Order: sequence, then structure tokens, then C-alpha cells
Amino acid sequence: MDNTKKVEILRIKGDISNLEEDIVVTEYPFTIFINDMEIVTLLCSPTSLEYLALGFIYSEGLINSLSNVRRITIDEDNGIGYVYLDEMNEFSKKFMGKRTITSGCGKGTVFYNVIDSFKSKKIEKPLTIDIESIKRLVRGFNKKSQLFIDTGGVHSCALCSADDIIIFEEDIGRHNALDKIFGRALAENIDTRDKVILTSGRISSEILIKAAKRQVPIIVSRSAPTSLSVEMAEKLGIALVGFARGEKMNIYTNFPNLNF
Amino acid sequence: MDNTKKVEILRIKGDISNLEEDIVVTEYPFTIFINDMEIVTLLCSPTSLEYLALGFIYSEGLINSLSNVRRITIDEDNGIGYVYLDEMNEFSKKFMGKRTITSGCGKGTVFYNVIDSFKSKKIEKPLTIDIESIKRLVRGFNKKSQLFIDTGGVHSCALCSADDIIIFEEDIGRHNALDKIFGRALAENIDTRDKVILTSGRISSEILIKAAKRQVPIIVSRSAPTSLSVEMAEKLGIALVGFARGEKMNIYTNFPNLNF
Repeated sequence: MDNTKKVEILRIKGDISNLEEDIVVTEYPFTIFINDMEIVTLLCSPTSLEYLALGFIYSEGLINSLSNVRRITIDEDNGIGYVYLDEMNEFSKKFMGKRTITSGCGKGTVFYNVIDSFKSKKIEKPLTIDIESIKRLVRGFNKKSQLFIDTGGVHSCALCSADDIIIFEEDIGRHNALDKIFGRALAENIDTRDKVILTSGRISSEILIKAAKRQVPIIVSRSAPTSLSVEMAEKLGIALVGFARGEKMNIYTNFPNLNF
Repeated sequence: MDNTKKVEILRIKGDISNLEEDIVVTEYPFTIFINDMEIVTLLCSPTSLEYLALGFIYSEGLINSLSNVRRITIDEDNGIGYVYLDEMNEFSKKFMGKRTITSGCGKGTVFYNVIDSFKSKKIEKPLTIDIESIKRLVRGFNKKSQLFIDTGGVHSCALCSADDIIIFEEDIGRHNALDKIFGRALAENIDTRDKVILTSGRISSEILIKAAKRQVPIIVSRSAPTSLSVEMAEKLGIALVGFARGEKMNIYTNFPNLNF
């Protein structure tokens, strides 16, 4: 399915208006089922859906590793991802079995269970990287994001070694873009513990926690971090970099992990 | 509570690095209870929390009007909003009573109930406005957003007449900013059916639906719309304007409602 759609627009520039063809980014409802039970509908870009499904259920704590997953089938036409798990972990049993108890249906509550379970998982393997490497990675990252350049409507996310972008994903949602990255890393058995995450989006606590779950030691964003993400990054031993643009960046936490 | 927090950062500019004090935007977990039952935890900016609670439960379809609400109490220190409803509407009864059936805990499913119930609510009172008025409103809107200028980390949202900004709100989440607007409009009994919504954020289907529920005839964004929001706006009779910056803007739907 296409990541963009053509639309007819009236383009205004000062006093001039023109009827033109333009493109907008596709917004695609994608519903995930686990063992035939409906879990969630994500609004996303219709690419890397298998990785999105995998990354989402991992981020939400519903699987601990790829070995829990027997099969994923994507029905692209109907926007459905069927995930079959061989065994449920404790959280997924609780999540799926006792829905009378999970009083919070809606945004956030699932996530807060995740916070509780990963509160104390400090980064075990700090990574040291040169500032110049970060600048080089950010330059490559910016060049790659053609969909953003075309539509202005998506977030990009990348998993990188100190030298190269290894996985690159885009999505209308910054959470989805990150989940696609981690879903693919899981599927392809790529170690995330010695890697850098680059993102175009703001770093909120939710983004930080997703990265912490995968033990990513360095997170770099083109945008701003929030207070909660700075506090958590400090505590978890993650080096947090914001406003990484051209020759500039702000390092918020764990300065010694970035070399000059 | 403050909307920003001071942090110490290492600021990099080319080869120069300086330890400096900077500010980041506060991220505040805010849990809403309805009749003593936990509903959701929003991650938000800690301002206008009463409006956020009200706007959120309205957007999610849990109340039909202010008359359903007996009382709202905000416990700012602990990040909790207690909402007491006199009577539950059909949706909230279903939502709160039969949680064994709402299989989808997490993002989106609640929202899709909302889509179903409001699918056909076309704008009843189209509003016609001059392009020059839009440009003037956008200029005023940009000037107002001091928090964004300070931190780069928030979205702004405003409810406007053709001449003036009537309500202005900011939040780290574009949904929260809009919910604050509508919560305040509800609380102050401001008619939204002849108004314009301005937002700094992307217009996704969820934003569009929230505005459609309040019968807002014109939505203007500094950013991009998605395909789904364009389709819905077309169908619902909403004039959708994107990339409104300086003298430029793109009109995506219902062109005749904007005058030259």
C-alpha cells in the first residue's frame, strides 16, 4: 500500500491561489489481534506492518522475546495483523485474562504497567561515541527521510551503529516508527545494546522507556526532550541528545558517554 | 505547577561545548477517575487540568454535555483528576460497566467507538471566512506560543472567531491541547459551531473527529494533514487548511468556505 495519497488542493501564496495536485501522507488503521483476541487499533503508515505488530507487542510487554511468537500474518487490505503466541508471559496473561481488573481502558494505563516492570533496568553496557559520529549519523538520517520531505507529515527513526544507519523506518506516529525499528531488530536478531537511536520526534517518557527496554544506551533527537524523559535517562544511564541539527546539539544526560 | 523545568545541559556548537542551564518542558502524568474508577493516565503539561479532564471525557464520548458532570476535583500534587458524573450516557455505561467485553485495552479502541457514533455528523452550519482573517489569526497564534519558543517542546491550539483568538492552550500533546480547548469551551458554554480551530500539530483523523464532534467548521494547522483527515473533512463538510505559515497555506477541502 502507498505511503502517500494524491489530493487536489487550493494553494495560497499571498494573493495568488492555484488549484494543484499535492500529496498527503497515508493514515492507515491497523488492528492487532493476539491469539484471535483484538488488542489495539494503531493509526499508522502502511509499511513494515509485521515489524510494527511485533515491536508494539514487545514495547507493551506482551512478549519477552521473539521465541514467544509462533506466527504473524498481515491482512493488508483489511488493516489487520494476526499474531499467534505459543506461550503468554505473566503480563500478557494478566492483560488478556483479567480485563475486568484493568480498569484503565484507553491511552496510558497499559504503558504504566510497563513503567512499573522496567523502572529499575539501568543500562548495563554504556556506549561511548564521538560527537563527530553523531553529527555524521544525523546528516545521513536527514537525507534519508524522503517521505517527510514530500509530505511534511511523518516521523523518521533509525537504529545505528557508531558508523552507519542499520535500520530506518518512517511513520505518521513517532511511537510507531520506533516500534517498527525494534520489531525489525527483534525479527532480525540485531543487538540493540551497543546502538544509537535517532528520531525526528520529541522524546517523551514513553519513547525513553521503549528504548530503555531494549537497553539502547544513546538516544538522539532532532526535537526536544521532556522533563520526565531527562529524569529517566539520567537514572537509567542513557545519554540523551536533543535538537541535533547540523553542527549543533544539546546533551542532556550522561555527558561522559559522548567523546570530543 | 510549572510548565518547564531547569536542567543542566552540555551545548555543542561545532567544536565548542559549554555547560549551560536550559529549560525543558514538563511532562506530567495525570490520571482521570470517573466516579472513583480509574479511566486513563494522560501524559501532559500541568496546566488547565480541569479543562483537560472535561475535554478528554467529552472527546471520548463519556459525557454528552456539561450537565452530566456534577463535580471535578483536581489533586495537582498527585496528578489526579476526580470527575463525578450524575448520570452515565449509554457509551460510558458500556465503557465502564462491561469491561470484559471491550477487548481492546490500549490506544485507539475507545476512539473507534467514537468514530462509529459520529461517523455521519456532517457540519450543520458552514462558516465562511476570509483568507486574510486566517492569515491574521495565524500571526497572532504564532506570537502567543511563548512556551514553544522557550522549549521547542509543546503544541499550541486555539479556538477563534473570524477576528480573535478566544481560547488558547498549550500542551506537550496535540490531543491534550485540543481537549483543553474543548473542555474550556464546554465549561464556559462557548459555542464552537461558528469558530475556527488553529493548531500547531499535524491533523490526523483523531484530531479531525474531535473537532467534528464539536461541529467546528474550519480547522487550520501549521503542519500537515493525513489522508484520512482529508477524506473525513471532505465528507463532514469541514474546511481543512494545512501548512498555514506567513502568507502561505494549503486548502485541502471545502474550498468555497474560504473567501478571497
